[in-house]
Amino acid sequence: MQIIDGKQVAEQIKQEIAAEVQQIIARGGKRPHLAGVLVGHDGGSESYMSSKVKACEQCGFKSSLLRYEEDVTEQQLLDTITKLNRDDDVDGFIVQLPLPRHINEQRIIEAIDYRKDVDGFHPINVGRLSIGLPCFRSATPAGIIMLLERYGIDTRGKHCVVIGRSNIVGKPVASLLMQKSNPGNCTVTVCHSATPNIAEHTRQADILIAALGKPGFVTADMVRDGAVVIDVGTTRVPDATRKSGWRLCGDVDYEHVAPRCSYITPVPGGVGPMTIVSLMHNTLLAATHQIYQ
Amino acid sequence: MQIIDGKQVAEQIKQEIAAEVQQIIARGGKRPHLAGVLVGHDGGSESYMSSKVKACEQCGFKSSLLRYEEDVTEQQLLDTITKLNRDDDVDGFIVQLPLPRHINEQRIIEAIDYRKDVDGFHPINVGRLSIGLPCFRSATPAGIIMLLERYGIDTRGKHCVVIGRSNIVGKPVASLLMQKSNPGNCTVTVCHSATPNIAEHTRQADILIAALGKPGFVTADMVRDGAVVIDVGTTRVPDATRKSGWRLCGDVDYEHVAPRCSYITPVPGGVGPMTIVSLMHNTLLAATHQIYQ
Repeated sequence: MQIIDGKQVAEQIKQEIAAEVQQIIARGGKRPHLAGVLVGHDGGSESYMSSKVKACEQCGFKSSLLRYEEDVTEQQLLDTITKLNRDDDVDGFIVQLPLPRHINEQRIIEAIDYRKDVDGFHPINVGRLSIGLPCFRSATPAGIIMLLERYGIDTRGKHCVVIGRSNIVGKPVASLLMQKSNPGNCTVTVCHSATPNIAEHTRQADILIAALGKPGFVTADMVRDGAVVIDVGTTRVPDATRKSGWRLCGDVDYEHVAPRCSYITPVPGGVGPMTIVSLMHNTLLAATHQIYQ
Repeated sequence: MQIIDGKQVAEQIKQEIAAEVQQIIARGGKRPHLAGVLVGHDGGSESYMSSKVKACEQCGFKSSLLRYEEDVTEQQLLDTITKLNRDDDVDGFIVQLPLPRHINEQRIIEAIDYRKDVDGFHPINVGRLSIGLPCFRSATPAGIIMLLERYGIDTRGKHCVVIGRSNIVGKPVASLLMQKSNPGNCTVTVCHSATPNIAEHTRQADILIAALGKPGFVTADMVRDGAVVIDVGTTRVPDATRKSGWRLCGDVDYEHVAPRCSYITPVPGGVGPMTIVSLMHNTLLAATHQIYQ
């Protein structure tokens, strides 16, 4: 069994990106610039956003953070997005989700210029991903693909079972892995809350991707010997032994599942760090106009 | 075993659409207008296009057909698309595929205003379909959904296996059937040319959708007793007994598979007529601005 060290791969890719940025600057080019919009003070959102800002520093990107209180109006956010869309210095930007209930998230997402949509949530990027065209790939699925690539895990003809059908993980990772590409060429099964017998499906998986957000859901009896297990879960569970009072818990019962696997991602330190690196990668692609002109 | 009579359902839906058009006209509204662009003289394309024109008549739509020879340039087609995009009388239009090799199909598709893209091929419509937002659905998948609906086939929690991962059938029908919706809520498996053991997957299917374009590929041993089988294949095979010299052949060995099924679509007369009706339905949605303003 080999642990897929997402933290190490993420560090390596950030160094590669930083080296590329140095070359860009050396050639007299513009420093990539990622902007982020953060509404309110949710602990998770604050922590993700500060990790992204830190990753920008490591990659040599310029970053800017626009903060709003919980009572910001939808129109104020839309105006901010218009400004960011027009700002030539901003290569890409993200609006940290979730947003307060009085704001229509989908309207916000669609207001973002798809050429700056480095989160890959705009319907144009989602559609292009499905068709198999170059696009900004949703960060978590893109991070999973990078891990499979870096660990040389052969996906062709493998049966990949995805648990979860969210728009930001389950659906796009299924889409990427069924493409005629490498990584890709998987037979893909998508299970979800309406699947009556999830274990029957997961036991057939050569590659199992758990992205449902239920701590410890995937138990040892649900996994075939030798499977590759990718754990996307990042639920905060109370933990009195930690200073923070909580710890991150994956969707996989790691202790009992790991011994059966050929490869497995831990939580934390697996998919999580790759998600942020994918965002950095998308920002570099945006700054160098490798997807859109 | 019940045969799913796509021809009959299609006739019924066309009558429903025609009745709605009559009401629109009675209220002083505008007659829906579908335009089609046809390049060259391929037999299949000619035949599809004339079926679409005929269906427009049956629905009470205005239709117009713009024809070009094989040597039309990409720029000429793009200019035509610009005109159709701007023409307020045209509610929706399609460019019949395939196009000659010197023309970039994807560029043509993306030039179409997504609000008039009644084929549902534009990345925005593909993306919205994946996310689960209102959109113009690709015609064949939408036709399959309508058949499941009209026959009251329960899809919730069922295992749907799709053979084929094309952008116009396999991927979008998989996407529609995994949505949190009704029809929908299926566990979905997508098999394709890189799947080593397709029969192992198809034998688990409650609903089997064959969309690979290989006549008679699905044999009786590949189907579970009581399965719902949807045959999307429409390959022309030589047939000396026909006046035309050919007949349409599905992807399913109908004679031997049908007895095992709970429901099955024949070829012809199953999915085929529904594809054209979906296009009519999309055109009505476009004319009445039910998807986009």
